[in-house]
Amino acid sequence: MTAEAVEGPVLVVGAGLIGASVAMALTRAGVDTYVRDIDTTAAQVAASRGGGSADRLPQDPALVVVATPPDVLGAEIARALRTYPSAVVTDVGSVKSEPVRQLREAGALSSRYVGGHPMAGSERSGPLAAAADLFDGRAWAVVSRPECDRAAVDQVTALVALCGAVAVPMSAQEHDVAVARVSHLPHLIAALTAAQLGGAPPEHLALSGQGVRDVTRIAGGDPRLWRQILTANAAAVGALLASLRDDIDEVVESLAAGDAERVEKILAAGVEGTSLIPAKHGGPPLALQVVTVAVPDQPGALAKLFSDAGAAGVNIEDVRIDHDPARAFGLVELSVAADAAAGLGHALTERGWAVHG
Amino acid sequence: MTAEAVEGPVLVVGAGLIGASVAMALTRAGVDTYVRDIDTTAAQVAASRGGGSADRLPQDPALVVVATPPDVLGAEIARALRTYPSAVVTDVGSVKSEPVRQLREAGALSSRYVGGHPMAGSERSGPLAAAADLFDGRAWAVVSRPECDRAAVDQVTALVALCGAVAVPMSAQEHDVAVARVSHLPHLIAALTAAQLGGAPPEHLALSGQGVRDVTRIAGGDPRLWRQILTANAAAVGALLASLRDDIDEVVESLAAGDAERVEKILAAGVEGTSLIPAKHGGPPLALQVVTVAVPDQPGALAKLFSDAGAAGVNIEDVRIDHDPARAFGLVELSVAADAAAGLGHALTERGWAVHG
Repeated sequence: MTAEAVEGPVLVVGAGLIGASVAMALTRAGVDTYVRDIDTTAAQVAASRGGGSADRLPQDPALVVVATPPDVLGAEIARALRTYPSAVVTDVGSVKSEPVRQLREAGALSSRYVGGHPMAGSERSGPLAAAADLFDGRAWAVVSRPECDRAAVDQVTALVALCGAVAVPMSAQEHDVAVARVSHLPHLIAALTAAQLGGAPPEHLALSGQGVRDVTRIAGGDPRLWRQILTANAAAVGALLASLRDDIDEVVESLAAGDAERVEKILAAGVEGTSLIPAKHGGPPLALQVVTVAVPDQPGALAKLFSDAGAAGVNIEDVRIDHDPARAFGLVELSVAADAAAGLGHALTERGWAVHG
Repeated sequence: MTAEAVEGPVLVVGAGLIGASVAMALTRAGVDTYVRDIDTTAAQVAASRGGGSADRLPQDPALVVVATPPDVLGAEIARALRTYPSAVVTDVGSVKSEPVRQLREAGALSSRYVGGHPMAGSERSGPLAAAADLFDGRAWAVVSRPECDRAAVDQVTALVALCGAVAVPMSAQEHDVAVARVSHLPHLIAALTAAQLGGAPPEHLALSGQGVRDVTRIAGGDPRLWRQILTANAAAVGALLASLRDDIDEVVESLAAGDAERVEKILAAGVEGTSLIPAKHGGPPLALQVVTVAVPDQPGALAKLFSDAGAAGVNIEDVRIDHDPARAFGLVELSVAADAAAGLGHALTERGWAVHG
């Protein structure tokens, strides 16, 4: 990550959810920002919500952020490179190989173009859903090629930092394989699961809980946008889908055979998978550490311990009580985030608890 | 729904996430509550967090809530009916036909038993994750049989209301088909999607955004619990899985053939599916209504309109601006929740805006 500031003026082309949010983040940071869209209402709404100016265009932008739908991405990047011959040009598209291929074919690929892809979105679309902090703590792929200008890469990396996101440098091909797995497949699966609801009597849907809402939330995304994304990354998505279909076959067989062990093994692979998703800001999954406390065997003691731990601002992830009838107290093992263990130990000691290594 | 109060004392058998949360809701409401678990730590933790007493058992509970894992549900319901011959007995299990079958087979089925299933849960388990408001606004299936005592049905319905949930009466068979679709299939699909992450290089997982987190969140649930749920409802789940597999085949083919139209059609069915999920508290999906406002053609006017709408506490779902060069103002159409439209109209009129029908 660079500490350099984003150089303005910046022109954002496309005032949808992502474009408008980038424009709002730039304006909030004091960067001279302009927003343009073929839908002038969208551009006006983005500007009115703090996304800069929609009435004028900059003469000579230092940076152009192309935030159009995937179908026209290559053409709009080419246009920006041509119209503003000294500007750095980036984009926020969900697929990265295809626009590079299009630019190369058109002889328009320039060392001033550095691709980008913020891993933020919403089931809502358009500038009304935009927010300056949409990218806070999110990964943002920065997709450069060996021939890219160093200054262009720095400018795009500075944009990522300004938006509060974490820059993840990778090649276009690597990016497309990665997002097939962490974004495009989940979207498709959410859509297919939601589509299954169509066959249900309404009174059955009354039993919908938070689980099905979470699993299907992103399925509400714009089908015209997602059709473009999925077809532009068809090979990588298709391969993963085929693999998932094989797993489904295995579950169908296991359920039919009443093979509970095999079902559990598949579910355990899912638990393992969720543990691989890095924490926000790219941190590693939570590591736990045990803090052991002697607790007198009297009513309310355990409740007071939880209350004191809560007052110390520490989340208890698990608890185990060691009952020894020969002692007048029990040993309670509190599992907490490793980086909170020392602080919890101090806080509990201060409150009069006997804390063991 | 009944306005009757829950009659105590209540014994909750099983101090996991659901049992402990029920005990906490009962205790919060002033009902004399006892909690028991073969894991005495779990019962103690539940009690210390406000779930009643874990040290004693009531002599003659009016209601027993069985909240054990599915595998032992039938046996524990039978035990409660036998041990407390005048108590109403309910449970919170995810599958409803299987325990009834077991009770009938054992000659233990009683008119005092009324099944239940709150549609609330978490990827976390155990009493540390419990909360008295876990069920707030959630559906809670009340599964009675024609021969059930009216008083037993009323007592269970009162428990649902006390927990802040919405009682949904249905038969055991209907319930099991419904939850296969709105709970068990989504859980399996989340697990399978999460399992696909296992094959990815860590640097690819750095691109994980909110979408994949939401889709896979419930996959973190306990595999031993879910194996029991899925195998107890194998036929209904298997049928839906097979249907989903056919849909995946169609997507794989469409992507391979570059048939974007067909991909969009599948995605649109997903959008339609998400719109079928009722709002919390069982309300219908959001209906929209348009409020039209004349906005002077001057800088900042649109921003002021959004700000005034926000001050009125109304969420704008969509906006359209009608540009007419012959007029000195534009007509802005704000789409808002139908039941908020009149209030927004009044609020904007009061603030000096010209609001049209």
